[in-house]
Amino acid sequence: MENSDIIFGLRPVIEAVEAGRTIDKILLKKDLNGELAVRLCHLAREYMIPVQRVPVERLGKYTRKNHQGVVAFAAAVEYHRLGQLVPTLFEDGALPFILVLDGITDVRNFGAIARTAECCGVNAIVIPERGSVGVGADAVKTSAGALLHIPVCRERSTVAGVRYLKESGCSVVAVTEKSSHNYTEGDYTGPIALVMGAEDTGISPDVLALSDSRAAIPMFGAIGSLNVSVAAGVMMYEVVRQRLAANLEVL
Amino acid sequence: MENSDIIFGLRPVIEAVEAGRTIDKILLKKDLNGELAVRLCHLAREYMIPVQRVPVERLGKYTRKNHQGVVAFAAAVEYHRLGQLVPTLFEDGALPFILVLDGITDVRNFGAIARTAECCGVNAIVIPERGSVGVGADAVKTSAGALLHIPVCRERSTVAGVRYLKESGCSVVAVTEKSSHNYTEGDYTGPIALVMGAEDTGISPDVLALSDSRAAIPMFGAIGSLNVSVAAGVMMYEVVRQRLAANLEVL
Repeated sequence: MENSDIIFGLRPVIEAVEAGRTIDKILLKKDLNGELAVRLCHLAREYMIPVQRVPVERLGKYTRKNHQGVVAFAAAVEYHRLGQLVPTLFEDGALPFILVLDGITDVRNFGAIARTAECCGVNAIVIPERGSVGVGADAVKTSAGALLHIPVCRERSTVAGVRYLKESGCSVVAVTEKSSHNYTEGDYTGPIALVMGAEDTGISPDVLALSDSRAAIPMFGAIGSLNVSVAAGVMMYEVVRQRLAANLEVL
Repeated sequence: MENSDIIFGLRPVIEAVEAGRTIDKILLKKDLNGELAVRLCHLAREYMIPVQRVPVERLGKYTRKNHQGVVAFAAAVEYHRLGQLVPTLFEDGALPFILVLDGITDVRNFGAIARTAECCGVNAIVIPERGSVGVGADAVKTSAGALLHIPVCRERSTVAGVRYLKESGCSVVAVTEKSSHNYTEGDYTGPIALVMGAEDTGISPDVLALSDSRAAIPMFGAIGSLNVSVAAGVMMYEVVRQRLAANLEVL
């Protein structure tokens, strides 16, 4: 996390939120109370910014200056909401292609995935509020700037995002090794939302249960799993391949 | 570079080479002379280990101990030679699938590419002696151990490796944005060598000139280029897709 992404101190964080700066999350000292702290918590709820209560030692890792028990992480871009973005896609006659990242935590993976998504004509990337890397300066850098071009929707949870996408008419495809369906056998020529899982635990059971179909990338060696940014790339380009073969417009 | 990969001092490096330890490269102080230095240079030539003359300050970056003007980087695996590996593949009735990396320098990219190659049933990875990351402990780690399973051939140069592969009957496919041939249009059901270029400069002109065909991954966004490990993954899985569709055995 680069220093330019960090805001600390009660008043500076309140001012940043009120000024409309997009904040990824706020860390609050466990037992912090008082008028300003209460006001900050209200504001955070209003702006849908995740707040986490942490031991004071954790705050000290981000700054040695007087943080007054508050450290906030500014996002490098404005987040979007699926509820606004998806209807517009359908209204514009686009063929939605959404990528849902269910808890990616490595910033380099996130950057590489965003870069590929931008190259593939993906309309939006969906991340959950908690348990995911955010769009900080490092992520923008490792995405080669792609994150400045592709909308990122931050939803309450992956489940909420996936449920909304399903209801909107997108076919939700879970990319997982826990399937016998070869990924090239699915049909990706309609509105689609691909779901990629976390590096360690994969796609969460709730999200898997919601998905319309599963897609497995075949493995032939001893290792048996790909880096998530590579798996996402292989899957996204299969969508592109099928759409080009069907003479559909990609983006 | 982890410390376990580094050997320093004239006698220790000579002993390591004589003991048969695989050395990635040796850095020698620019003006280092004397009997032992001459002996080391002869040994390096015999064992085909690249030697680079560098200012003494560069050596100091790797160790603060008394390096006597010599720092060597041990490889974590034994390197193979195409001249031994490729004939065996053909004799065994395999359908060769070789991946040539023309100057990949980022260890994380190299690791992710090796991991994908191992999952795709690639028979060997080819790297040049100079201007490429080697198979150190970091590379093995980022490959999730794949580099302990897949043979890595280190050739004098990429050109020499590609020329050998062509003469052996492999179709050499250069994966490059500098082409109008969509990568899905090529036929990858025969013996094949895919060439991926360096992160910054791509495939070198000499290697491009030697290739039998070019393959471009289509780009639809503003960024216009993929991370090399993602591009390699998309391309390798296109080979797998075609071979499975043709009922050919993958590995």
